[in-house]
Amino acid sequence: MTKTVKALAEHVGGVVEGDETIEISGANTLGEATEGQVSFVANQKYIRDLKTTKASVVVVGEKIDAQGKTIIRCKDPYYSFTQIVVLLHGYREHKPIGISQNASIAENATIGENVDIHDFVCISAEAEIGDGTKIYPSCTIGPGTKIGKDCIIFPNVTIYDGCEIGDRVTIHAGSVVGQDGFGYATHEGVHHKIPQIGNVIIEDDVEIGANCSIDRGTLGSTIIGKGTKFSNGIVIGHNTVLGEHCLLVAQVAIAGSTTIGHHCVFAGQAGVVGHIEIGDQVTVGAQAGVVNDVKSGESIVGSPAIPLNQAKKSVLLMKNLPEFRNKLRDMERTIRKILKGE
Amino acid sequence: MTKTVKALAEHVGGVVEGDETIEISGANTLGEATEGQVSFVANQKYIRDLKTTKASVVVVGEKIDAQGKTIIRCKDPYYSFTQIVVLLHGYREHKPIGISQNASIAENATIGENVDIHDFVCISAEAEIGDGTKIYPSCTIGPGTKIGKDCIIFPNVTIYDGCEIGDRVTIHAGSVVGQDGFGYATHEGVHHKIPQIGNVIIEDDVEIGANCSIDRGTLGSTIIGKGTKFSNGIVIGHNTVLGEHCLLVAQVAIAGSTTIGHHCVFAGQAGVVGHIEIGDQVTVGAQAGVVNDVKSGESIVGSPAIPLNQAKKSVLLMKNLPEFRNKLRDMERTIRKILKGE
Amino acid sequence: MTKTVKALAEHVGGVVEGDETIEISGANTLGEATEGQVSFVANQKYIRDLKTTKASVVVVGEKIDAQGKTIIRCKDPYYSFTQIVVLLHGYREHKPIGISQNASIAENATIGENVDIHDFVCISAEAEIGDGTKIYPSCTIGPGTKIGKDCIIFPNVTIYDGCEIGDRVTIHAGSVVGQDGFGYATHEGVHHKIPQIGNVIIEDDVEIGANCSIDRGTLGSTIIGKGTKFSNGIVIGHNTVLGEHCLLVAQVAIAGSTTIGHHCVFAGQAGVVGHIEIGDQVTVGAQAGVVNDVKSGESIVGSPAIPLNQAKKSVLLMKNLPEFRNKLRDMERTIRKILKGE
Repeated sequence: MTKTVKALAEHVGGVVEGDETIEISGANTLGEATEGQVSFVANQKYIRDLKTTKASVVVVGEKIDAQGKTIIRCKDPYYSFTQIVVLLHGYREHKPIGISQNASIAENATIGENVDIHDFVCISAEAEIGDGTKIYPSCTIGPGTKIGKDCIIFPNVTIYDGCEIGDRVTIHAGSVVGQDGFGYATHEGVHHKIPQIGNVIIEDDVEIGANCSIDRGTLGSTIIGKGTKFSNGIVIGHNTVLGEHCLLVAQVAIAGSTTIGHHCVFAGQAGVVGHIEIGDQVTVGAQAGVVNDVKSGESIVGSPAIPLNQAKKSVLLMKNLPEFRNKLRDMERTIRKILKGE
Repeated sequence: MTKTVKALAEHVGGVVEGDETIEISGANTLGEATEGQVSFVANQKYIRDLKTTKASVVVVGEKIDAQGKTIIRCKDPYYSFTQIVVLLHGYREHKPIGISQNASIAENATIGENVDIHDFVCISAEAEIGDGTKIYPSCTIGPGTKIGKDCIIFPNVTIYDGCEIGDRVTIHAGSVVGQDGFGYATHEGVHHKIPQIGNVIIEDDVEIGANCSIDRGTLGSTIIGKGTKFSNGIVIGHNTVLGEHCLLVAQVAIAGSTTIGHHCVFAGQAGVVGHIEIGDQVTVGAQAGVVNDVKSGESIVGSPAIPLNQAKKSVLLMKNLPEFRNKLRDMERTIRKILKGE
Repeated sequence: MTKTVKALAEHVGGVVEGDETIEISGANTLGEATEGQVSFVANQKYIRDLKTTKASVVVVGEKIDAQGKTIIRCKDPYYSFTQIVVLLHGYREHKPIGISQNASIAENATIGENVDIHDFVCISAEAEIGDGTKIYPSCTIGPGTKIGKDCIIFPNVTIYDGCEIGDRVTIHAGSVVGQDGFGYATHEGVHHKIPQIGNVIIEDDVEIGANCSIDRGTLGSTIIGKGTKFSNGIVIGHNTVLGEHCLLVAQVAIAGSTTIGHHCVFAGQAGVVGHIEIGDQVTVGAQAGVVNDVKSGESIVGSPAIPLNQAKKSVLLMKNLPEFRNKLRDMERTIRKILKGE
């Protein structure tokens, strides 16, 4: 399938500068695009690549000079490019297969319309699977767990008993939802397990990466807010409440009973202790260790994490240490001379 | 099911102050408890919440003022509360299902009494499953592996060949026990695999979280001591020996051939290098990087990890750096004046 | 099975000093070896253990004194010992089982000769499995994915659609290959998924540990170079290209679109940001956070990571801070005295 530059521009509400009749068959990065492909510049840093790219058309923002290239000018070029990628390539297709004869579905489970359940899936007693949801091989859906509409559950996912998954949720392979939280009462040197009788609620439009682990609440729920996206290998503790539209990069760990606002971003391998409050639109740096409450809008880095500006000062002071040492030496020498009356 | 405050107090050997006839139907945290529920105060920090909680009775320690609330006074309030939660709510129930027709069990495997083996489980040749053990869907138990009595193996767990699992062990979904250790001999730029012919021994009463990975020994065993508890996403290297009753919080990584004593606590994302010795009752801070032997009883933090007291001094000195810089400036100015004879 | 010391020496091209007729039945470390076993000394540090070991013969390097022990002298003692371990103990045996009746194999999948496919494996449409490959229970091989010859895929592994796995690749249990990369275009506060239409290419002789996650390319491929070895819990972002013969220790995370050369070593829990270039033979320390390009041959440590030599200086300066403070105090006192004319 190909589309003209004109058609692409109309699809995203952009304006063409150059030849709107070129046929485009695919999308790629500036460096790897070939003739007949569309690319994008969302960042001033990459403007220099506009001249050398082999892309036939480039989606650019409002203030970027076309430099002789055919361009589609848009307000939000990365988003417009994404829409074009969806138009040209689409998302992964899921072949409808219905309910596999090799799946094991409890008699009193409720299965919606147009559901695909692949081989070796277990749907436990009283579970509910919403219309249009796809469950790939070797997943287990625990007793009483409810999954909404149009979800995609990739292979080898386990969802424990009593959890609630919203609509249009995607969970990638190997992830686990609803295992027991890490709760023990230690008495005379022995750790006694605290019953973990809560659950996990995953709201609409969440995407969970591969091999993530989300603890159920001890009492009450662990909640992942609407539209939040996880990369891989992420761990969420019991009773943590994550707000809407957050982004969690790979291997982030958030301990139990922490409350996090909306539109927060956690870079890779960041860790957050339990029982704190993090506001809205907070940015946490890679490998940061968050140990205290964080106000809305703050950017924090380091372990233990401190505000970004403060951290920059510390780094600067560390860099000045050799200079401090030299000054100390010079001054000691001068003082010695003064004392000797030289 | 409800219990009177009196019954709860008797169950834990505590003393009621207030109305012992109140009927209690559930347990919750101070903040979330409602009428008819029991809560607890284990920490002086939360005493102020005693006045505002809606819990009908609160389990407290010996020195805490009741402030007009009905309380159950106990020596170890968190443990007593745990016992009450178990009494009121119990642990997860496992419906007895016997041996599923959809499981694959080797002819020469040995299966005990009252064992539950769910759909799509593989029990390999010469494996042994002890009485009362439950194995959930899509687990694989490798050849010759022995699992003790009353274990719970949640879905999608893999236990490789030749491992030994004790009694009352719980392994959460997605965890892997006994994969090959990371051992290669590099010769002329190529990494040659060293056969990994040891195994993993998990002793009684261990609980392993979701998506953990425990390497088998290269020669000999990797050992997880009795009563030790893991959260999620933990990695243990080959031939490491972990003592009894340790607690490992999420994403801890311990490299190979390290020996660790009993009652150690590793906070989240801590890492430990291989071939070191860690004593008993050691506490390792979150994100710490342990690179040297640690004596019994020490608390260490930071990367590389140092004793907590020493780390506090470093932090203090870092904070003083701006003051150091200012003092240096002042002194330079003074010396200049002295030299000029002012 | 036993072998004489002479036979072992001949197998590795080494020279015996001592009794070449001793029969050897097993291999072990110096500390744990018993009579009739072979051990090795690859590191000067362990020479003192030569006298006390119960091993009947020890493989040593060229400059090591035998101290009365029967030894096999070799150029590369660790590699020679590895060859001996392989000879005496061999690698894990995989019992040939053919194609299980309990596996689900798409009609148009292509299965080679001498392939073993265990129970509850799903091979999707148009997948190809090369000769001699073994796929353990509950794995899913996605549509159109090609796996080469003599691979070993352990239980509960998921390989998504359209990936390419070379020959002699081993993937341990619970790992996931080819899940969607973490790509969203955020527009008016909502994260819109960017189609992830690339794939993962794993070249020959790669070994992947347990519970690893390798993102597919957004456009184009994520590539793991020939002979590279992963420990457990590792995460690789979309479009990252890892060179040949690298070693990645547990829980390493490498973000997207980063390019890494050959023979690099990443110690445990190290993290690498996206969109950077790392040269050949780079060594990255445990828990390091790599945020900038790294030249070939460099060793870097810390978070953010800096060259090892520079880091050593920083640590030294930090250690000197108490001395700096004392000097400052002394000088202030001296200056005060000077000013007072004492």
